[in-house]
Amino acid sequence: MARTSGRPAVGARRDHGTPVRVAVLGCGNVGGALVSLLVEDADAIAARSGVRLELAGVAVGDPGRARPGVPPGLVTGDAKGLVVDPSVDVVVEVIGGIDPARALVEAALGAGKPVVTANKELLAAHGGALTDAAAAAGVDLLYEAAVAGAIPIIRPLRESLAGEAVRRVMGIVNGTTNFILTEMTESGSSYTQALAEAQRLGFAERDPSADVDGHDAAAKAVILASLAFRCDVGVQDVSPAEGIAQVDPVDVAFAGHLGYVVKLLAVIERTDGSDGTDGPPPEISLRVHPAMLPRTHPLASVRGAFNAVFIEGDAAGELMLYGRGAGGRPTASAVLGDLIDAAHHVSTGATARVTKRRRPRIRPADDLRCAWYLNVDVADRPGVLAAVATVFGDNGVSIRSMEQVGLGDEARLVFLTHVAREGDVHATIAGLRQLREVDHVGGTLRVMGDEERA
Amino acid sequence: MARTSGRPAVGARRDHGTPVRVAVLGCGNVGGALVSLLVEDADAIAARSGVRLELAGVAVGDPGRARPGVPPGLVTGDAKGLVVDPSVDVVVEVIGGIDPARALVEAALGAGKPVVTANKELLAAHGGALTDAAAAAGVDLLYEAAVAGAIPIIRPLRESLAGEAVRRVMGIVNGTTNFILTEMTESGSSYTQALAEAQRLGFAERDPSADVDGHDAAAKAVILASLAFRCDVGVQDVSPAEGIAQVDPVDVAFAGHLGYVVKLLAVIERTDGSDGTDGPPPEISLRVHPAMLPRTHPLASVRGAFNAVFIEGDAAGELMLYGRGAGGRPTASAVLGDLIDAAHHVSTGATARVTKRRRPRIRPADDLRCAWYLNVDVADRPGVLAAVATVFGDNGVSIRSMEQVGLGDEARLVFLTHVAREGDVHATIAGLRQLREVDHVGGTLRVMGDEERA
Repeated sequence: MARTSGRPAVGARRDHGTPVRVAVLGCGNVGGALVSLLVEDADAIAARSGVRLELAGVAVGDPGRARPGVPPGLVTGDAKGLVVDPSVDVVVEVIGGIDPARALVEAALGAGKPVVTANKELLAAHGGALTDAAAAAGVDLLYEAAVAGAIPIIRPLRESLAGEAVRRVMGIVNGTTNFILTEMTESGSSYTQALAEAQRLGFAERDPSADVDGHDAAAKAVILASLAFRCDVGVQDVSPAEGIAQVDPVDVAFAGHLGYVVKLLAVIERTDGSDGTDGPPPEISLRVHPAMLPRTHPLASVRGAFNAVFIEGDAAGELMLYGRGAGGRPTASAVLGDLIDAAHHVSTGATARVTKRRRPRIRPADDLRCAWYLNVDVADRPGVLAAVATVFGDNGVSIRSMEQVGLGDEARLVFLTHVAREGDVHATIAGLRQLREVDHVGGTLRVMGDEERA
Repeated sequence: MARTSGRPAVGARRDHGTPVRVAVLGCGNVGGALVSLLVEDADAIAARSGVRLELAGVAVGDPGRARPGVPPGLVTGDAKGLVVDPSVDVVVEVIGGIDPARALVEAALGAGKPVVTANKELLAAHGGALTDAAAAAGVDLLYEAAVAGAIPIIRPLRESLAGEAVRRVMGIVNGTTNFILTEMTESGSSYTQALAEAQRLGFAERDPSADVDGHDAAAKAVILASLAFRCDVGVQDVSPAEGIAQVDPVDVAFAGHLGYVVKLLAVIERTDGSDGTDGPPPEISLRVHPAMLPRTHPLASVRGAFNAVFIEGDAAGELMLYGRGAGGRPTASAVLGDLIDAAHHVSTGATARVTKRRRPRIRPADDLRCAWYLNVDVADRPGVLAAVATVFGDNGVSIRSMEQVGLGDEARLVFLTHVAREGDVHATIAGLRQLREVDHVGGTLRVMGDEERA
């Protein structure tokens, strides 16, 4: 960190071969894996990428702790000092959370230094302001690693699809919940059993709420929406935002019987038919909820802790990007790709590409439209189906198929609806609950990816 | 094309808002779709991407023909004149084939203009020289559309994975053959029937040889290898290069019975265990052949005319990129993404990112290693299996499983081997053919994506 002489100003063109000096803030799973790549693979990375990265320092909360693989002379407890060190060219933030990450990223951008971050919470909460700060400084703010780990999703959305009118993005962006749902699907276990198994194998935290309640997926939905639709949104715009704790193994089994699998999806969608660029601000929706997907849908085959993002565009058609959504080394790989980008820009004096974001309209959750699965316990006597069907009809919800399961005094009716307004489906469910013939409205699930059949 | 005054030199920084003028060479499926995007969506593209693209001209072979949607004043028969027109900033080549595409691309690069191309033949044959010419001119040569249509694969390989040691890339990169194999798998039809169906639906040409013989996939393998391993290779390095005309529906059915699907794969692989950057040139292999993939492999669920590329990297783990591999609009979407990149570079005066390529060693086909499926017709009498097994053993090929099908005088033995050297498997097949007890060696297929089980 001592070398400060004779370096060109950030942003100026510099000789090829001059190393680009990297400060790493945070040394957990991702930071540790990144440092080991930077230290052990420096020559290979330079040969592959044409840019030489040099570790300038690693800021940690507890600099006294031994960290195997991290050069001790480069460890510091003074993150702020490292960020503003004039010899540092690029700052990587892999601390996570809002504080102190936010202040450090702002300090780096304020000092005219590009920032690479894997911090989804920070981006979901303050992405707009940080993007503006990066634009004002004319430097990169890159965050490929913040969504879906190693999967290249941010760069394709920002660059490959820069000219594309994206209609919808559906993502399996949380590995913990996908592991749990895969367990429930493939071994018939309950949510509680599958969660315990995920915890045992290290795929779920001891307090799993951020994952299983959908908060993590919601933060990623915000980042995806901001890129896909070039708009300024926050987690408060994600509606509905539901987790998987209510998913019943009975409904997972029925889904399988009907040719579907249950997945936790983050869905962002243009809902006004516009291409989101002309006239008034576009209308979009952001939501996170479990959904049934047809077994032939590409997302249906994403198993275990893997992630995937399915993109539908006007010209490109259907795309899917699949890979490891978490883990130190996969995430560090994504950070490294960004770091090489930023380093190239530093080396060549290029400025970052900036797109203006605006505030979209958010479609009210009640006005969203999709098909539904409903599982209704009824008394098995004549006239029940007529009574139940009347409630659907009175609320404007059209039934696509009905199957009766069970015999004797009790019967279970399993419905798939045609595409319906969400508010109307909720009214139907409320109406069914008041019906004398209905014992219980069991699981209800949205059905996605099946529009041509619904 | 007349406006030539007051424009900054290419490469110099210019005002935001100044349109970047685009010459399109070729106006077939892809060119036509691109022109219509550029003409109809100009405002939307500018709003989304922050760069304004202006169609400068469209060069065609027959300028007299009416082309709906193409502004007649912009059509020219003089491609060379359009390329060197000083008002043209970026050149898009979507003619295809080697001549005259090669000379026009060289002329554009020679005039210091970035080039976007979708031309896989040109890149497979002359990619190294054209990359050098682009590097010498300090301009972009971009070709996202040349492999797997709309799927962002080139950019992830070149940028997201710039720091990644890629171990292997397996791609379903030809939609025609994937459609045919999907038909054979799902409806049990013969190769000839499935090809006829593909032709009827427009997924196969009247002369399908470029697709079904694997030439198209081989060209794409060359492009993928040059990017994944930063090396200079050509179609002559692809070995084996086999198509699908020999695939027997019986073997497709046996594959299904054993839990596999048959796909035509382009496989490129680091075969020396190195990371390909230090010491002597790396050893790699490039091959195209039908293969059996386990049904749970992500590539196995790629159906019909879709494409997908599966990447295995040291840090990133497993990635898959999936989407439409062909078609005018999907391919035009990929061209547009590149065009926006090139236009940004023109606007900001940034120089292209260049990585040196070197000539790798190519692993001889006989030394490749994978598991195999063999289907052997034998006379059903005592001692046959011993005789057959002896041939495997004598050639150092270890049997993983054997299943006998059929009864009476004839029996069919279906073998899966452990991972074996390709030369040894060929020797085994030759040995079996000489065996008195063997009537016929039927289908033989490599088994991929199953290494942990094999």
